[in-house]
Amino acid sequence: MSMMQECIEACSAAAMSATMCADADAAEGMGRCASLCTNTADVATTMMRMMMRPAGYDMGVMTSMMTACMTMGEACAAECAMHADMSEHCRICASACTAMVEACRSAMSSMQTAS
Amino acid sequence: MSMMQECIEACSAAAMSATMCADADAAEGMGRCASLCTNTADVATTMMRMMMRPAGYDMGVMTSMMTACMTMGEACAAECAMHADMSEHCRICASACTAMVEACRSAMSSMQTAS
Amino acid sequence: MSMMQECIEACSAAAMSATMCADADAAEGMGRCASLCTNTADVATTMMRMMMRPAGYDMGVMTSMMTACMTMGEACAAECAMHADMSEHCRICASACTAMVEACRSAMSSMQTAS
Amino acid sequence: MSMMQECIEACSAAAMSATMCADADAAEGMGRCASLCTNTADVATTMMRMMMRPAGYDMGVMTSMMTACMTMGEACAAECAMHADMSEHCRICASACTAMVEACRSAMSSMQTAS
Repeated sequence: MSMMQECIEACSAAAMSATMCADADAAEGMGRCASLCTNTADVATTMMRMMMRPAGYDMGVMTSMMTACMTMGEACAAECAMHADMSEHCRICASACTAMVEACRSAMSSMQTAS
Repeated sequence: MSMMQECIEACSAAAMSATMCADADAAEGMGRCASLCTNTADVATTMMRMMMRPAGYDMGVMTSMMTACMTMGEACAAECAMHADMSEHCRICASACTAMVEACRSAMSSMQTAS
Repeated sequence: MSMMQECIEACSAAAMSATMCADADAAEGMGRCASLCTNTADVATTMMRMMMRPAGYDMGVMTSMMTACMTMGEACAAECAMHADMSEHCRICASACTAMVEACRSAMSSMQTAS
Repeated sequence: MSMMQECIEACSAAAMSATMCADADAAEGMGRCASLCTNTADVATTMMRMMMRPAGYDMGVMTSMMTACMTMGEACAAECAMHADMSEHCRICASACTAMVEACRSAMSSMQTAS
């Protein structure tokens, strides 16, 4: 349960960082980074909301959405890491995405142990 | 590309049906159905938006999100199908979810053939 | 009721056009347009969802959200109209935003007559 | 700027509380409360995202969306307050909605002073 709480907070932080990174990217013509960050904001927000809805909990659904969220976070972190030296918003976003991926991994292993 | 267009439309229809089903479910005390439908609305909306953002296209991300969307649609359709006889909104939602799952399956196989 | 249905469809079309316009804008360094379009996609999606949730209908809430949606649609249409000659996605988005504003205006006057 | 930061955090807290309240409401057959809370979660999330996108800042759009967010927060707080004695999730949600309304009011007056 505290693993889930940490994961919700990590998704929230990644959604915020990615929203701000996408807005800044667009003005700099960084189209691929903006697109990946906008996707990350949506995926992280959906993931976070699903953890806050226990009434419809389904192990298979949570596992596949966690996997999608981790794949998304890894792709976004890899893109942002390429611009992290020159762009503070990319450095922050890469770090928040990596933290989300780790929090999802911990939450998934807790879920599987609990079941 | 037309496969993608059909998949976007199927996700849009499922998101709408699930939003309306969840609202009606809550008044009837159908908590598990409302929760699954609210999750489906968010997952389908995110999936649809990702298909409309080609600049950040990533094969691995799309594949894992499509898988999550199909798993979600199947779980929601199964739940709604149990109430379809007595509840028109569940019948409609089950049908829209099943159509979304099929459209995702077609879009995924097109994506994999194209790459 | 049919006014509401038309308004839902107009919001859905604007949300889709704005999502695609924002993705294309970012690659072209059109930061202000991308930002307004991303906001429009979120506002139109929220507006549309609220119309599909009759159980929590509140006249004051609907009126203020309709007003926000119209103000957003007008600002986005004005920005996109400036690039409509050279950019097809901006031309489509401006047109979808204007149609959403008109549909919201009709839905609002129906709501007020009905009450 | 710090007013905006406080407002983003208040919207985030309200979006989370309302998401959890809606999920619990549905299982208890509290349809109107679930519907208002689900709307609040969407409006607060959209409001929060708009504050994190400075590139498309428009005073008229922000003012009308802040007004919609405050009207939504007041309606949701009023509904949740009616069940606050018997339902912990409603008590928390009412409190988070009231805090969001106050934070929006402060952010709006800062915005208007700054311009």
